[in-house]
Amino acid sequence: MHRYPKAGLQNLAAQLAGGTGVPPEDAALFAESLVDADLHGVPTHGVSRLSIYLKRIEAGLIDPKAALTIDRRTGSVLALDAGNGLGQAQARKALDLLMPLARQNGVATATVRNSQHFGALSWYANYAAGQKMVLLAMTNGEPAMSPAGGYEAFFGTNPIAASFPTGKGFPVKIDLATSTVARGNIIAAQKRKAAIPEGWALDRDGNPTMDASEALLGTVLTMAGHKGYALALMVEMFSGVLSGAAIGPDVGSMYKHLDRKQGVGHFFCLFHIDAFLDYAEYLRRMDETIDRIKTSKKRPGAEEILVPGERSARTAELNRAQGIPVSDETVAEIEQWCSRLKVAFNCHEVFC
Amino acid sequence: MHRYPKAGLQNLAAQLAGGTGVPPEDAALFAESLVDADLHGVPTHGVSRLSIYLKRIEAGLIDPKAALTIDRRTGSVLALDAGNGLGQAQARKALDLLMPLARQNGVATATVRNSQHFGALSWYANYAAGQKMVLLAMTNGEPAMSPAGGYEAFFGTNPIAASFPTGKGFPVKIDLATSTVARGNIIAAQKRKAAIPEGWALDRDGNPTMDASEALLGTVLTMAGHKGYALALMVEMFSGVLSGAAIGPDVGSMYKHLDRKQGVGHFFCLFHIDAFLDYAEYLRRMDETIDRIKTSKKRPGAEEILVPGERSARTAELNRAQGIPVSDETVAEIEQWCSRLKVAFNCHEVFC
Repeated sequence: MHRYPKAGLQNLAAQLAGGTGVPPEDAALFAESLVDADLHGVPTHGVSRLSIYLKRIEAGLIDPKAALTIDRRTGSVLALDAGNGLGQAQARKALDLLMPLARQNGVATATVRNSQHFGALSWYANYAAGQKMVLLAMTNGEPAMSPAGGYEAFFGTNPIAASFPTGKGFPVKIDLATSTVARGNIIAAQKRKAAIPEGWALDRDGNPTMDASEALLGTVLTMAGHKGYALALMVEMFSGVLSGAAIGPDVGSMYKHLDRKQGVGHFFCLFHIDAFLDYAEYLRRMDETIDRIKTSKKRPGAEEILVPGERSARTAELNRAQGIPVSDETVAEIEQWCSRLKVAFNCHEVFC
Repeated sequence: MHRYPKAGLQNLAAQLAGGTGVPPEDAALFAESLVDADLHGVPTHGVSRLSIYLKRIEAGLIDPKAALTIDRRTGSVLALDAGNGLGQAQARKALDLLMPLARQNGVATATVRNSQHFGALSWYANYAAGQKMVLLAMTNGEPAMSPAGGYEAFFGTNPIAASFPTGKGFPVKIDLATSTVARGNIIAAQKRKAAIPEGWALDRDGNPTMDASEALLGTVLTMAGHKGYALALMVEMFSGVLSGAAIGPDVGSMYKHLDRKQGVGHFFCLFHIDAFLDYAEYLRRMDETIDRIKTSKKRPGAEEILVPGERSARTAELNRAQGIPVSDETVAEIEQWCSRLKVAFNCHEVFC
């Protein structure tokens, strides 16, 4: 494990993206998103993904210079085409287009098609919260889960996310995959040669399995059975069907399909709080609600009641002070890309 | 069990509401919502609730003549005050106010405060779908669930609902409480003197319990642990905090608190499909997605893969033909109200 200062790591990631043809502005957004994920303790969406993005750019599967174009505009709705560009940069630019519309009309919505995985939510959440806006976001993804009663991978782990500004120094940040568990946990169990709990996955014939290797050939189960199926379907309809993106099994896999585009679709809704109530009154209500939740009676054995977003804000504070942790494996990958793209690894480790 | 024709039952319910002072237009909406719930196989939200609504009106806890007023209007956002009127009538009128805004701006959002339980989603879903609109709806409710790590009833079973028009004769209709199970299932287990499964509820000291009576004194668990907590919180923030309604433990109970108002808050978002893509193209994409889901491989033992909304549409078809089922207990309650309000029980049973 290594720790790097935020600015240096971000600069390095941006230089590498630039080395594969991403223009400076987009490279900066992309790098900011990746490092922000690491900062907030979501390394699965951080610089550990840099390599696969660069690989897909080099393979012509992501267009580094793609523009974000407007397919259709009606009042406060934008139907956008990401032109197969980097999800993070295109999603952030979509929010920038939405913000004046939300400020004017109170609410604004965008769908985005022809996109990729757009990274972790924290970055968008903090951005929207800084503008006194509530963000609702969904995205489809590569097939991993089946409808209730089925066992073909149909839906992605289709996350639902929402963030709300607070006066507590961090936004409340809801961000959950509609699967029982992230596929990463099954991969981790396989590496440890451990069994996985019942209810996590089906094998390739649709039978429940506790064998991690069998599970990886099969499907991950939706959270809470048919309720998770319903939510995954909702996400697919907002971000896949309504957007004009690839739907369900047609979405390409980031790691498995090195011969076709992903075609991911996103859905964003921004709500300007001033349109609903005075911002000061909103903050008072929000903070009081958080206080009441945190001081409500704790279950035997529970140390603290957290609100969603609180833990990741604490992690970010720690990482900002101590440097952002990056695994040995990811550092080695970055070094390879530096040598390949003739970029100096000019980011100095932080030693606490 | 008795079965009644839809029109007759609806007329009777409207007359009874009228008898407690609800004006004809609102009484018709209210009755239509209740009977529509029964029609779609959701009797918990149907005429079985007529009695408690009438009781609350008579007790001065619901204002039968309440107007729906606009607290604030910004572009496509309406912050509404239901004036403590009937949730069903006020929510439907809120949708009527939103529809022209959604048609004009592609998206429109309303919050509603000072409201009551607004009934079942089917009614709103079919209404929005008929206007080529996607509906997203949330509502808070009387305290039943605790935050993860806590055991004080804080959140309602805070449902999330969304509906999408299709070319299949029914809208896709997602409608789920964020609890593991409806409280009604625990009440049913108590009546049967049966144990409840692990993971459904906590007792009043915050310990897991399989005893239905203990569970009813405690709290229902959120679906999927902390994910359900996060979703319940999201619903509370959209429909409680943002709306100016009562929040969490301050929401009154319909059955338990016969001395105070409920103060429920709702959140609605309407999306006009034409703003995103051509409606014909939308329908093609939607129907193809449904077909692919339904024809995907079935798990061993699974007879059919359903999409959310399909089963309730079948139930409605059956009930439309055979008459709407009403329990003996509910018929007796309605008879009592007829005699009390001097309304003739002029609805003739259907005998199949």
